[in-house]
Amino acid sequence: MPRHLLSAGDLDRATALHVLDTASRLEQVLGGREVRKLPTLRGRTVVNLFYEDSTRTRMSFELAAKRLSADVINFSAKGSSVSKGESLKDTAWTLQAMGADAVVCRHSSSGAPERLSGWVDGHVVNAGDGTHEHPTQALLDAYTLRRHLGDLDGRRIVVVGDVLHSRVARSNVLMLSTLGAEVTLVAPPTLLPVGVAGWPATVEYDLDAALPGADAVMMLRVQRERMGGAFFPTAREYSRRYGLDRRRHSLLADHGVVLHPGPMNRGMEIASEVADGPDSLIVEQVGNGVTVRMAVLYLLLSGEVAA
Amino acid sequence: MPRHLLSAGDLDRATALHVLDTASRLEQVLGGREVRKLPTLRGRTVVNLFYEDSTRTRMSFELAAKRLSADVINFSAKGSSVSKGESLKDTAWTLQAMGADAVVCRHSSSGAPERLSGWVDGHVVNAGDGTHEHPTQALLDAYTLRRHLGDLDGRRIVVVGDVLHSRVARSNVLMLSTLGAEVTLVAPPTLLPVGVAGWPATVEYDLDAALPGADAVMMLRVQRERMGGAFFPTAREYSRRYGLDRRRHSLLADHGVVLHPGPMNRGMEIASEVADGPDSLIVEQVGNGVTVRMAVLYLLLSGEVAA
Amino acid sequence: MPRHLLSAGDLDRATALHVLDTASRLEQVLGGREVRKLPTLRGRTVVNLFYEDSTRTRMSFELAAKRLSADVINFSAKGSSVSKGESLKDTAWTLQAMGADAVVCRHSSSGAPERLSGWVDGHVVNAGDGTHEHPTQALLDAYTLRRHLGDLDGRRIVVVGDVLHSRVARSNVLMLSTLGAEVTLVAPPTLLPVGVAGWPATVEYDLDAALPGADAVMMLRVQRERMGGAFFPTAREYSRRYGLDRRRHSLLADHGVVLHPGPMNRGMEIASEVADGPDSLIVEQVGNGVTVRMAVLYLLLSGEVAA
Repeated sequence: MPRHLLSAGDLDRATALHVLDTASRLEQVLGGREVRKLPTLRGRTVVNLFYEDSTRTRMSFELAAKRLSADVINFSAKGSSVSKGESLKDTAWTLQAMGADAVVCRHSSSGAPERLSGWVDGHVVNAGDGTHEHPTQALLDAYTLRRHLGDLDGRRIVVVGDVLHSRVARSNVLMLSTLGAEVTLVAPPTLLPVGVAGWPATVEYDLDAALPGADAVMMLRVQRERMGGAFFPTAREYSRRYGLDRRRHSLLADHGVVLHPGPMNRGMEIASEVADGPDSLIVEQVGNGVTVRMAVLYLLLSGEVAA
Repeated sequence: MPRHLLSAGDLDRATALHVLDTASRLEQVLGGREVRKLPTLRGRTVVNLFYEDSTRTRMSFELAAKRLSADVINFSAKGSSVSKGESLKDTAWTLQAMGADAVVCRHSSSGAPERLSGWVDGHVVNAGDGTHEHPTQALLDAYTLRRHLGDLDGRRIVVVGDVLHSRVARSNVLMLSTLGAEVTLVAPPTLLPVGVAGWPATVEYDLDAALPGADAVMMLRVQRERMGGAFFPTAREYSRRYGLDRRRHSLLADHGVVLHPGPMNRGMEIASEVADGPDSLIVEQVGNGVTVRMAVLYLLLSGEVAA
Repeated sequence: MPRHLLSAGDLDRATALHVLDTASRLEQVLGGREVRKLPTLRGRTVVNLFYEDSTRTRMSFELAAKRLSADVINFSAKGSSVSKGESLKDTAWTLQAMGADAVVCRHSSSGAPERLSGWVDGHVVNAGDGTHEHPTQALLDAYTLRRHLGDLDGRRIVVVGDVLHSRVARSNVLMLSTLGAEVTLVAPPTLLPVGVAGWPATVEYDLDAALPGADAVMMLRVQRERMGGAFFPTAREYSRRYGLDRRRHSLLADHGVVLHPGPMNRGMEIASEVADGPDSLIVEQVGNGVTVRMAVLYLLLSGEVAA
């Protein structure tokens, strides 16, 4: 395990599998009625340093930390010394001095968690930075896929939507390819990053061509405010060309499953009948998020950390 | 005990008394200096899902849950996925997937907690929904009254103010009549709900006619922003006709007590000399709120729940 | 120990030393890897009642309380009953009724914590009130100075900046003089309070005259929004006349140390090379803040309190 979790690319195959297996064991231990909480991180402090609002992700980390008996402090940048102009470095030193054992950082700026990790002794977990990465999302998606598909080696996963602005897409491509899956990205040409040719993934513009026989499809969240912008289709076009409806869903392999990181724009990137259908793992993803974040915090903080 | 606490009307007389007696026992156990906290709900997660600000009610539930050793997660709709357009249903599924054992829901929309209860396995507690209900307020009021008046059978309770918009009034009428009290509602005709004739309460327009000999008077909070509106008296008129001053207070029975759910508009619906006087139970109500909410969470979560 | 901590002046020399020595013992006990948390305040409730945003101070008290196993409730005035017009007195009674064992109060109004202390049975800690006092800041500064300089008797401490609006300056002058230090205040004449002649401190207008041989210099935070105002120099002038740069830093005694309560305006009241230099205790101050606040909460709540 690296000292920090900044990128899905920080984890080699063995380490990624170790995190996922640890999550499985935690799920088994805490799945029963008897054990609801582990004392593992009692007395440790986890700070949720959120420069962007994200109630879901913050709650998920907060629950994960509390189920391991850690103390959790929520630090929202709004109305804090940050809004008085304090730099990330000074904030980092403050958290360091207060004895934060781990800092979970969400930031609108790509690379902020990595900079943070240079200034604190505690462990930094990237909880989403700009358009860059969201490694625990990739871990929870991989965990969810493995629960339903088994080993991901050779599995074909289609990732659909605004890849350009999606930290979820980037982290998932890295994680899934590390685990041996074949990833196909589907997006309008204007919504693909410049360097996508170098990614370990195939690019496709036609969703109907990419879906047949796929083991899973992962829909990305659309930012409504971008719709109809310079490089963006209108909502109507987007939905028609890149939305997952019943017909498209039927193109997947029989065992094919559907993922979405949430919150969904129902009727835009995904139809409700698919989102709520029997192949949808969207709600399960949320629960797995808590489990996987427990595994990450546990491995980072429990002393199993290698340099 | 029902599976959820959505309405004061969900509790029959026996169940209501069971909740109140449980609260009494908790008060006895925790009243001493030795025991400050019970381990009963260790490892359980209580989510405060607040779509409306209400620091008092949120704190009261948070304290109640923590004194039972539960973990508490605060979810404020502001700046959350809710503000990104997430539906109540998707939020419910998220909380469900994260393993919330109880969801305490405050919402500006009447019926939201009931809808929520259809989507989660956890227990839902209505912490105030629109103009509909606020059942734990009714329980704490009943608890407070019983501490001072004993059995409420045949006791005469006068509820005064904007009944039309008051979830407190509605829940109290249901709870108090279940417990055998005789409730009189006093309000301007424009501030009574259409169906009030069907409520288990007497309606009266003249406060001076309703108060003589009453065992308790419960003043409702006035929303200042409604004052002087189409169906509303001005603040001055309201205070003159429906405010509780010293003279009116003297009309109560000798043992008569004064309640208010807070926060008060001093000088408007209640005079400070009455609010701070020896017959006022207003501060005590706040403390009883924590106790009663402990009882509710305990009974819902500890397995004593019947279908 | 007094019942409340409202002013640095509430602590006589013996009591101040007792708090600082208690903090030292806590630091020793919790400094190792084995003990991370003490059970001392299990079941006690500490309410952070913050009428002004201050993430740092709130977090510091929250961490201090949690390391003593207390339950912490955060009450931010925004969006609370306070914004519905509830008075401080009614809020106080609410906290009292809910069983708050300690209330940590930050308020924009000088004297608010003292008024609060008249209305609650719990212990009140002033976490900064208007331009009045911030006694735990003074304690953490004294703790930090003693760690590096030993006994403060006869030590010369220079406090620089907007003394007029600084609760930190006022509390530090009281605390440091109680501990026997000689305090020199340096500020533009327009930024000194009217009664400063009565303070146990020397006043100096020329920073270069005050620094030579000083044992420590404490820079105050400048409120950028005041800059260039009626009684205020411009930012450029301020920095030139009252900023701590390398040259001025070199005027201190060889063992001289640099403090700042944070957050800093780098390049304004302090140069980065000084703030980040080997004599700067600024980061250490933050950590000591948690330790000192643990000592304060411990002494107030553990029964060692004298009337």
